[in-house]
Amino acid sequence: MDPLSRLRSAIGAPDAAAAAAARRHLDALTKPPGSLGRLEELGVLLAAITGRCPPRILHPVIFVLAADHGVAAEGVSAYPQVVTGQMVESLLRGGAAVNALAREAGARVVVADLGVASPLPEHPGLVRRPVARGTANMAHGPAMSRAEATRALLTGAELVDEEVGRGLDLIGTGEMGIANTTAAAAVVAALTGVDPDRVTGPGTGLDAEGRRRKAAVVARALAVNAPDPADPLDVLAKVGGFEIAGLVGVILAGAARRVPVVVDGFIAGAAALLAVRLAPPAREHLIASHRSGEPGHGLVLDALGLTPYLDLGLRLGEGTGAALAMLLARAATRVMAEMATFKSAGVSGPVGPPAP
Amino acid sequence: MDPLSRLRSAIGAPDAAAAAAARRHLDALTKPPGSLGRLEELGVLLAAITGRCPPRILHPVIFVLAADHGVAAEGVSAYPQVVTGQMVESLLRGGAAVNALAREAGARVVVADLGVASPLPEHPGLVRRPVARGTANMAHGPAMSRAEATRALLTGAELVDEEVGRGLDLIGTGEMGIANTTAAAAVVAALTGVDPDRVTGPGTGLDAEGRRRKAAVVARALAVNAPDPADPLDVLAKVGGFEIAGLVGVILAGAARRVPVVVDGFIAGAAALLAVRLAPPAREHLIASHRSGEPGHGLVLDALGLTPYLDLGLRLGEGTGAALAMLLARAATRVMAEMATFKSAGVSGPVGPPAP
Repeated sequence: MDPLSRLRSAIGAPDAAAAAAARRHLDALTKPPGSLGRLEELGVLLAAITGRCPPRILHPVIFVLAADHGVAAEGVSAYPQVVTGQMVESLLRGGAAVNALAREAGARVVVADLGVASPLPEHPGLVRRPVARGTANMAHGPAMSRAEATRALLTGAELVDEEVGRGLDLIGTGEMGIANTTAAAAVVAALTGVDPDRVTGPGTGLDAEGRRRKAAVVARALAVNAPDPADPLDVLAKVGGFEIAGLVGVILAGAARRVPVVVDGFIAGAAALLAVRLAPPAREHLIASHRSGEPGHGLVLDALGLTPYLDLGLRLGEGTGAALAMLLARAATRVMAEMATFKSAGVSGPVGPPAP
Repeated sequence: MDPLSRLRSAIGAPDAAAAAAARRHLDALTKPPGSLGRLEELGVLLAAITGRCPPRILHPVIFVLAADHGVAAEGVSAYPQVVTGQMVESLLRGGAAVNALAREAGARVVVADLGVASPLPEHPGLVRRPVARGTANMAHGPAMSRAEATRALLTGAELVDEEVGRGLDLIGTGEMGIANTTAAAAVVAALTGVDPDRVTGPGTGLDAEGRRRKAAVVARALAVNAPDPADPLDVLAKVGGFEIAGLVGVILAGAARRVPVVVDGFIAGAAALLAVRLAPPAREHLIASHRSGEPGHGLVLDALGLTPYLDLGLRLGEGTGAALAMLLARAATRVMAEMATFKSAGVSGPVGPPAP
């Protein structure tokens, strides 16, 4: 079996017994049943994915994969392509938004070059696995070959495998790549069949005219490449990106290793949709962090059938929404680990017939 | 001037200059302007309230005020009255939900007895300031005298004043009191004129029939007492509770001291509405933490004109939603304190005409 097929077939179902144990445990704690709402749902989900009750989070990692996009040449971003490499340097120095939020969540940030166009300095924190110096311009032909897409995907999976040895128990998906909302929009439009104009948003800050041009570029990329929606790898290769492919691998490997994956916003969502099309059971291992301000994100969440935990109008990417949702995941595990039960605390239960 | 009038008149406007400085600072950070959405809004709000840019959170405290309610005799709660005191003991041992979540948020929990009916054990962590051993049954007459309500309110304010000396820089409101959603529903119905049936929810877990009976009790309390909606203290005394009064004082004192107040759910929301009716400028010092699963909470948020940061279906109270929102407040301050600027990181700005 080839490595990708092996990865896909390694993904199993969540642990129903651990989920049931988590529900029983939550109902024994000193609170009306279900009164912590979606925080309880999150705790059950973490137990189901990991097979551990109570679940715990000791070594969370946010994987920030960086790459450039040939389609940036079409003027689809408010920022120049050189910003990808500059932001990688800032990420390595710990000054990006996701660094600050990851520190708040007690998460490590792994920064990996999957295909940045500009030269990057030597840095001990940089994981260098470039597939090429940016994708080709999808407005004129395929962004990647199928082999390149597979290689980037498996690189993402390797990053997870390496961290599992260090205790990895919660994954956040992050990315950096000028023009990658354009690639993500093309991926989502290709997979869902939704009109590119509905999937394409302002990204880092295009005006209305810029957004229309960007949507036209997405439409052109789809017309030129005719990606096959039934073949996710074809979609990924033709209109995706190296960091998107890497995130597909991160997600599939997380699912295969039973490490919960906190999915960030629109770009990570496009990767999650690809991952779930490649391996449907992967969906049960995902935690949707937030609803992005990017308009196409709602379509992605609907297609995944996931309801995010936060809705704060974030549209920054990098893994910032995943970092914030990790705070909630930590809170859920702490409740399960530290709250007293009615029995242990000597607190009376409901009067009369049990409350519903 | 009497102490309450002094407190009310001590509340000023937020600091517009600090808010403007916070906006400028956020726009200089390496991210598209506004792309951290409501996290940026929260950072600006913290700066405006405290007059400090960047704002900081070093000594957050959740004030959990406990008291009993005479109206519990009407069978309006799924739990017996003795649970209030039992939960106070659990809070003191650190085993309640808000304890776990406060630890996650790095916040201290101050537990105060404002009027618990059952005897409480000696405990160094318990602040003993009971006004009486529970309110009277508002279904038959006023819950408190005006003097008792004022005393409970000023007690809450004193708790804040005492903590300001220890560095208090963020307040969370919490409460514990069997039947206090009934009191809160009566307060909100009285202040807003909305039908008690629309304001009354299942609380800790009443069934549909129980909820209808509870709404009828709220309606009776309003008919019996005829609280004057133009006189918030009259409403508080007649259909409120000691812990609700104490929270009004916590909120007013926080606003007077320029310490941001993170308002928990329905009961804290009723207290916030009373506080804002007593001193309208107090509104600008409030942070609505979450949208409660309790149906009347939406009316409270609308009346306050506040949009909560979280919507997780919590309906536990204690200050649990406030603790979770403190995680976001901390994240906002960390972003402002630790992110690089475009200039410091040498990252290029937008191409061509500036993005909107």
